Order: sequence, then C-alpha cells, then structure tokens
Amino acid sequence: MHQTFDAALGVNLLHANQDLADHNREHFDAWGLTCLNVMSSPGAGKTVLLEKTLAALKDDLKMAVIEGDMTTELDAERLRQYGVPVIPINTGRSCHLDAKMVSGGLHRLEQEYDPNDFDLLLVENVGNLVCPAEFEVGEHAKIALLSVTEGEDKPLKYPVMFQEADCLLVTKIDLVPYLKIDVQRIIDNVRQMNSHASIIPVSAQTGEGLETWYDWVKKSCHREDVMKVTA
Amino acid sequence: MHQTFDAALGVNLLHANQDLADHNREHFDAWGLTCLNVMSSPGAGKTVLLEKTLAALKDDLKMAVIEGDMTTELDAERLRQYGVPVIPINTGRSCHLDAKMVSGGLHRLEQEYDPNDFDLLLVENVGNLVCPAEFEVGEHAKIALLSVTEGEDKPLKYPVMFQEADCLLVTKIDLVPYLKIDVQRIIDNVRQMNSHASIIPVSAQTGEGLETWYDWVKKSCHREDVMKVTA
Repeated sequence: MHQTFDAALGVNLLHANQDLADHNREHFDAWGLTCLNVMSSPGAGKTVLLEKTLAALKDDLKMAVIEGDMTTELDAERLRQYGVPVIPINTGRSCHLDAKMVSGGLHRLEQEYDPNDFDLLLVENVGNLVCPAEFEVGEHAKIALLSVTEGEDKPLKYPVMFQEADCLLVTKIDLVPYLKIDVQRIIDNVRQMNSHASIIPVSAQTGEGLETWYDWVKKSCHREDVMKVTA
Repeated sequence: MHQTFDAALGVNLLHANQDLADHNREHFDAWGLTCLNVMSSPGAGKTVLLEKTLAALKDDLKMAVIEGDMTTELDAERLRQYGVPVIPINTGRSCHLDAKMVSGGLHRLEQEYDPNDFDLLLVENVGNLVCPAEFEVGEHAKIALLSVTEGEDKPLKYPVMFQEADCLLVTKIDLVPYLKIDVQRIIDNVRQMNSHASIIPVSAQTGEGLETWYDWVKKSCHREDVMKVTA
C-alpha cells in the first residue's frame, strides 16, 4: 500500500494531495479549462487515443497535454507532432502522477502560454491500473481505458479504477475476433460497481466508437452532466 | 511515489521490506524450495501461464502458489483446479505484494502442509508493471511478463521491472500477425537495460515457447545459474 500518513509531518498524504488537487481545479475553473485525467494499464492505448483526439478536435477545441511517464519523452514527442503544447513530467520511480507534479506542469505551461486560451487539458497518467486512481490531480473527470486483451475479469480484480471512472473506453475492439472475450461481459462487470460512467467501446485502428468519444469530450468542455463536482 | 521513509518510526520501509524478504528466503532455502515472483501488467497472462505450468510440471515438481490480488479469489479458484495448494492474499487497495504479506501466506501454508515437501513456490503478484518490482518478497528469481499487445516501447518507459527481471516472457505472440509489432524490437529494448535475463517469447494459445519456459523453471529448481544471490 502507499504510505498514506506521514507521522512526523502529521499529515495524511492523500488528504494533502486532495487539497492541492482542489487548488489545481480552482485554477482550471478560473481559466475556463476542462481537465481530463486519462488512466489505464501500460499499453491499453492512452497515447494513440490522445493522438486521434488531438487530430480530430483541433478545429473545435484549443488543447494542451500533460504527459506523465516514469522515464523518456517518447510519448510527449509523439503528441507534439499535433501542434499542441505538451508538458512532459518524468516521475522517476513513481507509479502515478500526483497533484503536486501536475501543479508543476501547470506552472511550466503558464511560462509560455496564457492558460485562459485553452479549452481542454488532457493529462496522460503513468500506465498503471491501480495507483493513479487514488491520486486526484484536479481533473474534472477520470477517463479509464481497458483493452479487450486484458480480459473480462479486470474490473472485478482492480475495482478502484473502475469505481472512480467517469468514462470508460474499452479499447482495441478490432482484436475481439482473435480473442476469447465478450465485450458485453466487460461492461456488465463494470456496471456491478459503477452505474454512472459512460462506457464506449473503441478501436483506434478501425475508428469504431471514436466519434462517440469525441462527442463525449466536446460535451465535457461545455461541462454538461459528465462533470465531476469538487469533493 | 511510494513513501519509502517513515520518519516517526525512523525506518526506511524498503529496507524493512528487504530484511523481511531476506528472512523469507532463508526459510525457502532451509526448506529446499525455489520461489519465483511472477509480475506483469494486468492481463499480460500471468494466471494462464501458471495454469499451463502447474499442468505441465505436476509430475516433475511439487508446487504451491501464493496468489496476490487486490480483491476476489477468481484466480485462486482457477489455479486450485490443478490440485496444488493455493494461498490467496487480497491486498485491498495495495498495488503490490510485499514481504510481510508473503510471510503471512507462508504461515498459512505451514498450517496445512510441510513446506519441506515442496520444490517450487510460484508467487503471482498484483497486476502492475511498476510497483511490484520494488518490493522483494524473498524470491530467488523475478519473472516478468510483457504482452505483445502492450507495445514495443514499454521496456523503455517502465524500466525498473525490466532491469530487475531474471526471466522475461514475451506473451501472446499468437497475436503478432494482427498487430503492428516487432518482437525483436521488444527484445532489443530489454537488452538495452538488462543483459542477463532469459527472454522467452511464448503463446499460451498455441503453446509456442512453453517448453523452453518449463525447462527454465525446472533448472531454477536445481538452482543452476539462473538463481539470484541474496542482496
């Protein structure tokens, strides 16, 4: 478990993170910016989803990305090709982004841009189906991806992420014919613990489902129903 | 990041974990038991690999399993069908097994069995490509799985697991024809940071590579060259 209480400092680390996340969200709200926290296991397709999204919505929304990775700027370099600001955060040995890291990323964004100009901040978290769900960064909504290759039972086995998600993308559905997998069973397993999330099956290869996702994102930027209330 | 120092208790949590891991390993050595710590992202195929291994080696080795999951006994139930002792450990919100949890599992094993009778203890860790690599449980070797569906860049982006692995299984290679993936590039990326690990491409569907894995496991139980020296 993550150590959540520092006895010497007398602070609950999750509470301290939440305070800073709320502070980040106050900035986002003041700027009129929607922040989506994109999370999944490694290789579920977060970066390719962001590539598609940046390409598809470039005429509709002014976007920026905070790109979390333990090491390398491989993903940041991929996303910069779409002509948007991409702030890389290397977390070192850390398994998730936290509110302080994202706050640092925001300060770097502000050095070069006026954040009031942006509609949407996409935060790509470190690939991990467990820890990122526990550390809010100030997002208005949590986006979880689950690849069909990961198996039907994952919502049951890793419940925190699926309980917290506001939108779940079931990715790589083009691979279903080659797997022993039932997408409906994945959805049913998620619904056992989360009645409110939008669930969108997608394939970045065939494009299936992506229009539904783009509509969801555009709606989120007008803060309709999908938005999360500050805790 | 995991909090690694508890200032009030004055202990480095990773060092405390390592001490207990070393203690677990002393027990394993006294029992003549080899312990393999099996780790990967969720859905890379740990459980099906253990199923195949339990079935294939049942006449060669006396085996037991410690099965780590955040919640549910779904995997434990799958593995019990192979007629071996399976000790489930539910980690709750924790993202990895640690040495203390495994120590508790060993005590439960000892209540019903004589550990001296066993050759091999397979520990299936929580699905997470980051955190389990940092918390040794007393294993003689670390087994990492990487599914070809996760992408070629993962060893570069999640280096700790790939630096630490003694054996890397590149799984689901039956899906390569349907992906834009080059298995050799995965191997090359691992070799940038790890020159010693055995790397075995496998498919649980077609059986490709499994005999090589079984040989590796059998060799590990005779403590030949693949074994890890206590740190």
